[in-house]
Amino acid sequence: VVSIRIEPLAREAFRPFGEVIAADGTVEWINDGGAERHRGLARAAVGDGAVEIGVVVVRRAVSVPFEVPMLERHPLGTQAFVPLDGKPFLVVVAEDARDVGTIRAFRAEGDQGINYGMGVWHTPLLALEAGQRFLVVDRVGDGVNLEVCELDEVVSIG
Amino acid sequence: VVSIRIEPLAREAFRPFGEVIAADGTVEWINDGGAERHRGLARAAVGDGAVEIGVVVVRRAVSVPFEVPMLERHPLGTQAFVPLDGKPFLVVVAEDARDVGTIRAFRAEGDQGINYGMGVWHTPLLALEAGQRFLVVDRVGDGVNLEVCELDEVVSIG
Repeated sequence: VVSIRIEPLAREAFRPFGEVIAADGTVEWINDGGAERHRGLARAAVGDGAVEIGVVVVRRAVSVPFEVPMLERHPLGTQAFVPLDGKPFLVVVAEDARDVGTIRAFRAEGDQGINYGMGVWHTPLLALEAGQRFLVVDRVGDGVNLEVCELDEVVSIG
Repeated sequence: VVSIRIEPLAREAFRPFGEVIAADGTVEWINDGGAERHRGLARAAVGDGAVEIGVVVVRRAVSVPFEVPMLERHPLGTQAFVPLDGKPFLVVVAEDARDVGTIRAFRAEGDQGINYGMGVWHTPLLALEAGQRFLVVDRVGDGVNLEVCELDEVVSIG
């Protein structure tokens, strides 16, 4: 059993895997001073595809500790998830799915979203409550944009 | 004074102006049945630019009725706003900024976001409470992507 400890989601720690989406970016005042816009949080990258904005409702939540049987990645585009209910969720990523020692686990607070870098290994969405809603921004288009890697060791997160 | 009544935000009514982002799309089960993904809600269009995912925090709210002095539009890309706090907001759009008779006002519920079509006239973001947070997905890139039209009549919304 490989056990991975859950870290708080910090911009610097998550940099190898993608971007954190939260209202802590460089502020630019817009709407004649009526609103602050946090710039440069994340870019949705697409190769030859287009970008879709969607909503995901999680129907099966996880409770800590839990086991991770597989990782997936999207080689053709980034993928952003942002909580719409202000509730925390978990983010499990790896630099190399074939090396479970590279797996890291983050706790994202309810005001934080993430954008997976293109080709970054990650689990399916990990909500702590069923019914949690997330905005998803990712590529749509032709081509195979999903790779799955079944883990050959038992990996426990918590 | 031209007075515009606020309509509920319905997908069909908003179609000339853009897309409604809410968990009422065509459901596709993902993550081995653990989550439902609502497909085809909105596409973020870009011409020669890239797409940015950001956060906007509204610091100056409106209260109904209010007056609209100007409209703006972004000719080079779509622009999506999705509430992150589950709170309602208002959406004011026009088919033609020079014809105030084409202005329409919608009330978006806290589980609804919108994606303005490319070049659609709209007001700056209209939150009902200061501090409301929105995810914004829009184009970044070179070129002039903002046009402003000052209205020559007093337009009241409410």
